[in-house]
Amino acid sequence: MSQPDTARLLIACDDQPGIVAAVAGVLAQHGANIISLDQHSTDAAGGRFFQRTVIHLDGLAAARPALEASIREVADRFGMEWSLHDTSRRKRVAIFVSKYDHCLMELLWRQQRGQLDIDVTMVVSNHPDLAEAVRGFGVPFIHIPAGDKAAMEARQLELLQGNVDLVVLARYMQILTDDFIERIGAPVINIHHSFLPAFIGANPYARAKERGVKLIGATAHYATADLDEGPIIEQDVTRVTHSESAAELQSRGADVERLVLARAVQWHAEDRVIVHGRSTVIL
Amino acid sequence: MSQPDTARLLIACDDQPGIVAAVAGVLAQHGANIISLDQHSTDAAGGRFFQRTVIHLDGLAAARPALEASIREVADRFGMEWSLHDTSRRKRVAIFVSKYDHCLMELLWRQQRGQLDIDVTMVVSNHPDLAEAVRGFGVPFIHIPAGDKAAMEARQLELLQGNVDLVVLARYMQILTDDFIERIGAPVINIHHSFLPAFIGANPYARAKERGVKLIGATAHYATADLDEGPIIEQDVTRVTHSESAAELQSRGADVERLVLARAVQWHAEDRVIVHGRSTVIL
Amino acid sequence: MSQPDTARLLIACDDQPGIVAAVAGVLAQHGANIISLDQHSTDAAGGRFFQRTVIHLDGLAAARPALEASIREVADRFGMEWSLHDTSRRKRVAIFVSKYDHCLMELLWRQQRGQLDIDVTMVVSNHPDLAEAVRGFGVPFIHIPAGDKAAMEARQLELLQGNVDLVVLARYMQILTDDFIERIGAPVINIHHSFLPAFIGANPYARAKERGVKLIGATAHYATADLDEGPIIEQDVTRVTHSESAAELQSRGADVERLVLARAVQWHAEDRVIVHGRSTVIL
Amino acid sequence: MSQPDTARLLIACDDQPGIVAAVAGVLAQHGANIISLDQHSTDAAGGRFFQRTVIHLDGLAAARPALEASIREVADRFGMEWSLHDTSRRKRVAIFVSKYDHCLMELLWRQQRGQLDIDVTMVVSNHPDLAEAVRGFGVPFIHIPAGDKAAMEARQLELLQGNVDLVVLARYMQILTDDFIERIGAPVINIHHSFLPAFIGANPYARAKERGVKLIGATAHYATADLDEGPIIEQDVTRVTHSESAAELQSRGADVERLVLARAVQWHAEDRVIVHGRSTVIL
Repeated sequence: MSQPDTARLLIACDDQPGIVAAVAGVLAQHGANIISLDQHSTDAAGGRFFQRTVIHLDGLAAARPALEASIREVADRFGMEWSLHDTSRRKRVAIFVSKYDHCLMELLWRQQRGQLDIDVTMVVSNHPDLAEAVRGFGVPFIHIPAGDKAAMEARQLELLQGNVDLVVLARYMQILTDDFIERIGAPVINIHHSFLPAFIGANPYARAKERGVKLIGATAHYATADLDEGPIIEQDVTRVTHSESAAELQSRGADVERLVLARAVQWHAEDRVIVHGRSTVIL
Repeated sequence: MSQPDTARLLIACDDQPGIVAAVAGVLAQHGANIISLDQHSTDAAGGRFFQRTVIHLDGLAAARPALEASIREVADRFGMEWSLHDTSRRKRVAIFVSKYDHCLMELLWRQQRGQLDIDVTMVVSNHPDLAEAVRGFGVPFIHIPAGDKAAMEARQLELLQGNVDLVVLARYMQILTDDFIERIGAPVINIHHSFLPAFIGANPYARAKERGVKLIGATAHYATADLDEGPIIEQDVTRVTHSESAAELQSRGADVERLVLARAVQWHAEDRVIVHGRSTVIL
Repeated sequence: MSQPDTARLLIACDDQPGIVAAVAGVLAQHGANIISLDQHSTDAAGGRFFQRTVIHLDGLAAARPALEASIREVADRFGMEWSLHDTSRRKRVAIFVSKYDHCLMELLWRQQRGQLDIDVTMVVSNHPDLAEAVRGFGVPFIHIPAGDKAAMEARQLELLQGNVDLVVLARYMQILTDDFIERIGAPVINIHHSFLPAFIGANPYARAKERGVKLIGATAHYATADLDEGPIIEQDVTRVTHSESAAELQSRGADVERLVLARAVQWHAEDRVIVHGRSTVIL
Repeated sequence: MSQPDTARLLIACDDQPGIVAAVAGVLAQHGANIISLDQHSTDAAGGRFFQRTVIHLDGLAAARPALEASIREVADRFGMEWSLHDTSRRKRVAIFVSKYDHCLMELLWRQQRGQLDIDVTMVVSNHPDLAEAVRGFGVPFIHIPAGDKAAMEARQLELLQGNVDLVVLARYMQILTDDFIERIGAPVINIHHSFLPAFIGANPYARAKERGVKLIGATAHYATADLDEGPIIEQDVTRVTHSESAAELQSRGADVERLVLARAVQWHAEDRVIVHGRSTVIL
């Protein structure tokens, strides 16, 4: 969670000897203490290297420019992509929702209880139903009715651009255009109500019932142009039996959805998720 | 498990009032005590009704003809399909295997320990590799090399027809023809190394790795002409992370496969699985 | 869930031949259709027998007296305890809470969404903190400050006696006297924040951290004089690692607590839980 | 698993700035590539620090003395405990067993399949029953009948001292004396057939049945003088119901035991387990 004078350094580059030592050396030289360090190489030899380092540095704000300059030097040498995140700056999040409230409420509730390190700056919906519930948490609720797609997305982009660091689709039952996803300027996390890649597409619970599966799942993933194909962040399942109707499967699944989405948003908020091709590394 | 003078009565019919009373009445009239009774209706109104009743009746063998005559009468009245299974007659099982031994060994081992109420009467393989391991359990091992498909299946049918009550495909890496499945004259249980319907088909672990899923699963199902589409008996999953290679996923998955297959075979052996369309009811 | 003209019949007696047939016969004779029937015998021979039968009977209210008379006749013959619950009469529930809101909110929220078939008729607390949150659901909140134990319990009994069918202790951090539990006149469900019987008593999360356990659990049970020894209704666990602090274990555990308590209350509401000595049978 | 020219470096010391950099610097200076690095600090400030680093170094055997000298220098500066493990040297393991074979067979079987990176150099038992099964794996079986405790332990120590790196109690139903555990000269892993600290002591399944728990567990831990109090390495549970007898709970539990023990032994074999007081850190 957010702590004063604490930052998270993410790096990604082709695997090669000396990366850990070089980065740790720069941090030590600036007096930064390593609180935790996690890394992952995709292959024993010749793969991609990822590292997340949480550091503590007294007077972080003042020391940051010099530290960044040194990191940049190392990054250039190793061909790294990198980013440094001050933990005291919480991510600004917009939540998109339609009529189902369970995922939305779980996020608002956890934030209120101090369990989720984000700022929910707005909730956007194509239905007015949840206005009162959302405003009860002190969060703005903006109703943009479905209609002309282009006009609708234009209004949404006005709200989002420059104002948010993350968009969460909390069972938002509208399809987003590729163009829209690209122009938001922030990552988008979606919750899909099945264990992907099983039951890609619509009505997964009805299809799960028909197919007689013994486990019901949910998948949180980054939204991409191809909606159900984005990199998976988290998944979970719960056991069901033949005696449960499609409606009961939906109710059981809703409990999985809200926990899976909450974990995915939390990990993203803590800069623990790195996208690697079609998959993710969770550090 | 098998008990003297104990039988399992399975019935299936369209749901209608009075079924439970009629069946229980017949059983009481013949002096049979109900040890357990499980039933399931697919809908509150107008669906399909399934019931599994375990009964104890002193002198079952002698009393059976009269009991069956009475059951037949009730069954005709309600339009029931039914079957009565003496628990002292264990199902005769043939296991088909290729080179992977983990599912095979799990079944042989559980049977030897008295945890699995079946008689494994033969193991059939297209490879000779596992002959010694199988014969060490006192079970015949028959090697039928892959080659001309028709000739191979003809030899297999000679072995199976009339000799087995169940065929288990314990990671048997050969495709069975529709005709073969129909002519065996016994149900066939297959273990698929994924959480169906995700990753239908070949190489599910490689595809799971590529897709970055967070859970690895296995599915035991009845084999039908459309191999990965048969009614699902049991499924389970285990959690994995980005740090596991495709080979490690395979190893983790193998542990799930053997437990899922063992449970499915056990439930089938106890007459607990009823097929209903594309799904199953487990009573 | 509640349905018109639907009732649940619970029976318990010493196991003996003919019970199922006798009960099913009475139901059939009154025109009641069996929607579902679950039974359990504690031993193959000579144990205790439990049965839960859900029935549909047109004009239940009018037909009930005659049906009950017939059931009473059978019950006397077999020495049965029995009860008949009209599903349209939802149980009236009082929730006791202190300052932790997660279990309380889960119950109120599920009830509001139609997922929990109870009427929460009051929330009683020794702290005023949660008044606004509770009243936002349209539920009365009564603040009875801790103080003289006898006076406090006397006020609580005034509220409860005759007014509730169930009391739920949703992390209520006060000890109840034996006398109080007896005089409430309704069952009491408590949620304990550990996998009982591990970590009986106070501060289970701190002790779990110290002991280095790898799973954190929660237990919902009926409260008895010996608080953590009552019959267990439901338990579950979640995996944790050495990297989580005692505070994080508490947060992780809170997610388990609310799901476990919600399931236990739901099963009780559906008359699915029968107490048998120190344990329960869930039908 | 074991790889040529690969080693695992474990360190533990009081937390302080610069540890990661110092260690990474030494490794880089000797040309060792970091394959993976995991670390853990018990507290944000002033706790204990643990790190496991897997390195690859061409010509490890020849380079090792110089590398160790440099590590020793850093270790002295930071007050570190440390050890360097060549992955090509597999741990020599003795398995102690009585009559239950499920945990023993699981270990032998996994080793044979190449899933468990250990050398089982002997199986020691107080019963002769499993001799043939063990020798079938090409592993020596030594039968030391129970009798005079001191004489029995003396014979066992003769076998173990200097010959093994790990002792695994795979459901060994004899109590070990404190003196014996101390004199073995190798760590001892025990599998306890319950979710510790619930049901410490004998007959946990019977007591679990009596108590009506809804989950059955197993715990693998290092054996200490106080047998069921040693540091926990791994735990897991499986869901059970009222309908399962104590014997069935035992059978269900056996499946959990063998998986939990196999995971614990594997993690120990990979030098991933560090004892910290009464608990463990798994890196």
